[in-house]
Amino acid sequence: MSGLLGNHFITQIGILVNDIEKTSKAYSEFFGVPQPEAFLTDTLDKAQTEYNGEPSVARAKLAFFDMGSLQLELIEPDEHPSTWRNYLNEHGEGPHHIAFVIEGMKEKIELLDRKGFSLQQKGEYEGGRYAYIDTFKDLKVLVELLENDKK
Amino acid sequence: MSGLLGNHFITQIGILVNDIEKTSKAYSEFFGVPQPEAFLTDTLDKAQTEYNGEPSVARAKLAFFDMGSLQLELIEPDEHPSTWRNYLNEHGEGPHHIAFVIEGMKEKIELLDRKGFSLQQKGEYEGGRYAYIDTFKDLKVLVELLENDKK
Repeated sequence: MSGLLGNHFITQIGILVNDIEKTSKAYSEFFGVPQPEAFLTDTLDKAQTEYNGEPSVARAKLAFFDMGSLQLELIEPDEHPSTWRNYLNEHGEGPHHIAFVIEGMKEKIELLDRKGFSLQQKGEYEGGRYAYIDTFKDLKVLVELLENDKK
Repeated sequence: MSGLLGNHFITQIGILVNDIEKTSKAYSEFFGVPQPEAFLTDTLDKAQTEYNGEPSVARAKLAFFDMGSLQLELIEPDEHPSTWRNYLNEHGEGPHHIAFVIEGMKEKIELLDRKGFSLQQKGEYEGGRYAYIDTFKDLKVLVELLENDKK
């Protein structure tokens, strides 16, 4: 397996919404699946969120659905600058990214940058870290990298 | 399993593009996967395409990537009215639908219509048929139904 990520297995699709409770309820009813509880991403001190190279206090409400082959993530961003807020303002509600599990976050981000795909946003979550890469011009969707800590 | 489709396993994500050769090459290089040959959907007589309840001569170039858990479909529509052309004009390039394999297309379309989710477009392909359902208002993405003939 070559390629820039060493993986082409889509593990998640992320969709931006204005009202996560409303859209989450709609998914639950449409697909007959339990409505997951939405939760807020961590604060800056814990998440160490960086957007366009600067620390950002931006947070988002997230809700995850198990859609068989992959997760579907609903994202309701707050008003602070982030890839979520910026994309929502520019494109309106709808899909924002496809995500891939990778290993070696720092090296992957550097490799992608050398290939012309710059880092938009990164942060930490309980048990791992994420990075949104600006692949829109080439792939017409953003790519998110997910690295989970070995247990 | 309840829900309107009887299935919540995403089998495909469809992305609208202006230049399928260019985007297809970008995916191939980014993910290190073979570039699939794009092909044109069937003509009206064979595809029996209907858009908003009327026959449509619209066609699209399609290219399918195997992304592990699901297919990623690139779609370059022609200029004739279709869900593809209309959505591309309104939203720009990017994700258009998530697709689910169903059984009993006619009954599913009727059920969804009664629930307020109207049919946007349908058509036939070699070995099956598809229907795009207008779920955008509720799910922030379109849902495509795929029914494959029993072999």
